Amino acid sequence: MKVALEPASVGGFRFAGVSAGLKTKAGALDLGIIAADRPSAAAAVFSANLVKAAPVYVTADRVKSGRLQAVVANSGCANSFTGKEGMRLAIDSCTHTAQLLGCAPELVVPSSTGVIGHLYDLEKFKNGAANAVQALREDGLSDFAQAIMTTDTRPKTASTTFKAGGATITLAGAVKGVGMISPKMATMLGYLVTDAMIAPTSLKKSLKAALPTSFNAITVDGDMSTNDTVILMASGAAQNHAFGARDQAIFDRAVETISAALARELVSDGEGATKLVTVEVRGARNPADAERAARQIANSPLVKTAFFGCDPNVGRILMAAGSSGAYLKSDKLVLWIGGVKVAAQGRLLTEALADAGTAMKSREFGVRLDLRVGKSTATILTCDLSYDYVRINAEYTT
Amino acid sequence: MKVALEPASVGGFRFAGVSAGLKTKAGALDLGIIAADRPSAAAAVFSANLVKAAPVYVTADRVKSGRLQAVVANSGCANSFTGKEGMRLAIDSCTHTAQLLGCAPELVVPSSTGVIGHLYDLEKFKNGAANAVQALREDGLSDFAQAIMTTDTRPKTASTTFKAGGATITLAGAVKGVGMISPKMATMLGYLVTDAMIAPTSLKKSLKAALPTSFNAITVDGDMSTNDTVILMASGAAQNHAFGARDQAIFDRAVETISAALARELVSDGEGATKLVTVEVRGARNPADAERAARQIANSPLVKTAFFGCDPNVGRILMAAGSSGAYLKSDKLVLWIGGVKVAAQGRLLTEALADAGTAMKSREFGVRLDLRVGKSTATILTCDLSYDYVRINAEYTT
Repeated sequence: MKVALEPASVGGFRFAGVSAGLKTKAGALDLGIIAADRPSAAAAVFSANLVKAAPVYVTADRVKSGRLQAVVANSGCANSFTGKEGMRLAIDSCTHTAQLLGCAPELVVPSSTGVIGHLYDLEKFKNGAANAVQALREDGLSDFAQAIMTTDTRPKTASTTFKAGGATITLAGAVKGVGMISPKMATMLGYLVTDAMIAPTSLKKSLKAALPTSFNAITVDGDMSTNDTVILMASGAAQNHAFGARDQAIFDRAVETISAALARELVSDGEGATKLVTVEVRGARNPADAERAARQIANSPLVKTAFFGCDPNVGRILMAAGSSGAYLKSDKLVLWIGGVKVAAQGRLLTEALADAGTAMKSREFGVRLDLRVGKSTATILTCDLSYDYVRINAEYTT
Repeated sequence: MKVALEPASVGGFRFAGVSAGLKTKAGALDLGIIAADRPSAAAAVFSANLVKAAPVYVTADRVKSGRLQAVVANSGCANSFTGKEGMRLAIDSCTHTAQLLGCAPELVVPSSTGVIGHLYDLEKFKNGAANAVQALREDGLSDFAQAIMTTDTRPKTASTTFKAGGATITLAGAVKGVGMISPKMATMLGYLVTDAMIAPTSLKKSLKAALPTSFNAITVDGDMSTNDTVILMASGAAQNHAFGARDQAIFDRAVETISAALARELVSDGEGATKLVTVEVRGARNPADAERAARQIANSPLVKTAFFGCDPNVGRILMAAGSSGAYLKSDKLVLWIGGVKVAAQGRLLTEALADAGTAMKSREFGVRLDLRVGKSTATILTCDLSYDYVRINAEYTT
């Protein structure tokens, strides 16, 4: 399935991104709307963090109906840890946007990212929403993607087209990655829209099935935001006939492919990142062990600084795997860095380290660890830990 | 119990630290010996990492007897992930040291820290050990502490004196912290010696009881080394009579106090650290939840970079707690930074942030989070994540 990282028009949807003055930087886009022409099938997944932001509660409640017509998202303020006032603000923002769009308030959901512990100015928001509704257009996904950026260095979109249910179907998405504005809050927000005609329950299954190999298979710093949200909406404008099992499988694959492409963009643009590293653990006793080992390697600050330094540091990778809780035996491990075998039979392959170091100079490389005690695998995308990560996250103070 | 951070003489023990040429820097101390005049009671605890270094296996095996006479420790090479040759090297090193000391080989245990995946030169080691045995003296603990340093910026020792079993007893210790030499391996090594007359089983209990509030209550980067070892030896030179329950309690407290003092020194000298932060979680539903939340906060790169930036970043701390797996409710949380209450009743106390930021400018401060859902507490000592952490861990390449 061919994926373009450019935005696409998707039948039945319009998009906008405007500057509402919620970010401190004048003129920066900070309010975006995705609006369907009519109520659309919808599904969503959220942060597992027990500290959740107000917009997450509102969205989770409203998407239960399986129908949404619009998303109104802002950057510059996370509306998280803001108590009852935050809940009121999120609901009022939707009500106002719904009035502008001429739809029922409960069909509009909010997303916020940015400063935690603070409320945004509702009047600024209302003015921005009015401008955004005026600006809605079919090819506005790129503007929307810009409006949700925080420390992202570029807007992140992806799209694909495929045939299912006797029609040509488009699936497009936008995502924002870890980033923050003083006093900083990492948030991952993702939006997928399609013109497919499909039931909300199928959308939900499709989205959940895509997570393990996309948004849940990435890490920048191992931290989990209070605002993480991924929403999938389907307008039905493609007028396909009802999906059979084969059509559904194609659709599922499209959702997974776009999710994975967006997730990859997200890690690639991780705070301060200079490297995109695929950590693959195979031969684990069970899937939980595989994921434990892969995550421990992908999140280890010692491993991530070694990536930054292009240092084929076998010891740190094995140390991370050994402390992960995954069952392993030292003398069974086989490790490859950048395709070069660097450890086996309980020994470091010293003569291979120079080649591995050269491979690590690429912007992108892989680390593969075979535990050789079972058949389970797990893959996690991660990035390196650089001076810029520290700068971005330490320099601004409250 | 009064603790001095200076080394002390301990009856029945002699210490040395010499340069054996195992470190690349000429003249740097890299081989140390702790030798008892005769076989002593001993206990030890080790890394839970499933990838363990050769010296750890040898020490674990030999300390089972409850008797040791000497430790020979080197920096400059971790002898980890070195297969059967590494095991042979560790055993040969002990055998040679035992010959020099005139004791049984199985009473000598090895420790190594430094480069992983490589063997050290046995001839250099033998010459160094001969010099070290010549250099053994009662007031040599400081030299020993220097010989085990890697990226430590200073030798770390502590000592205390107390009365138990009708005698005046001394307990002293040395520790090395996270550090590495190209290609780098973090290792924590700790050695405690006392002149108390006490059974190995009591020593073991005492050491294990001290761990949760000392060496296991600290973190620098959340990574666990393959070589971590703490050894406690008792010579009996104090000629105390057998400990009663009250004497044992005093001894236990001394072990815990010295362990905690050394652990604190270790975090304070963490790689690139500019801050020493006590993270306390209270009001958790159970002890596991309290520890989970405290560790997640103490290990979060986003939290640690905020410490470095003196940024009272409430959002990141709550985000870490919320993603830890510990049960909590957002609106019950109360958070203090540097003694200043900064969040309560689901709200950020914005007006308090300036004071909290000022408190964070100290070299040392506390973060206290009350979950208010139970009675369990946990405390973890951590440090900040600075540019120097990245420099130290990324700059040297293999």
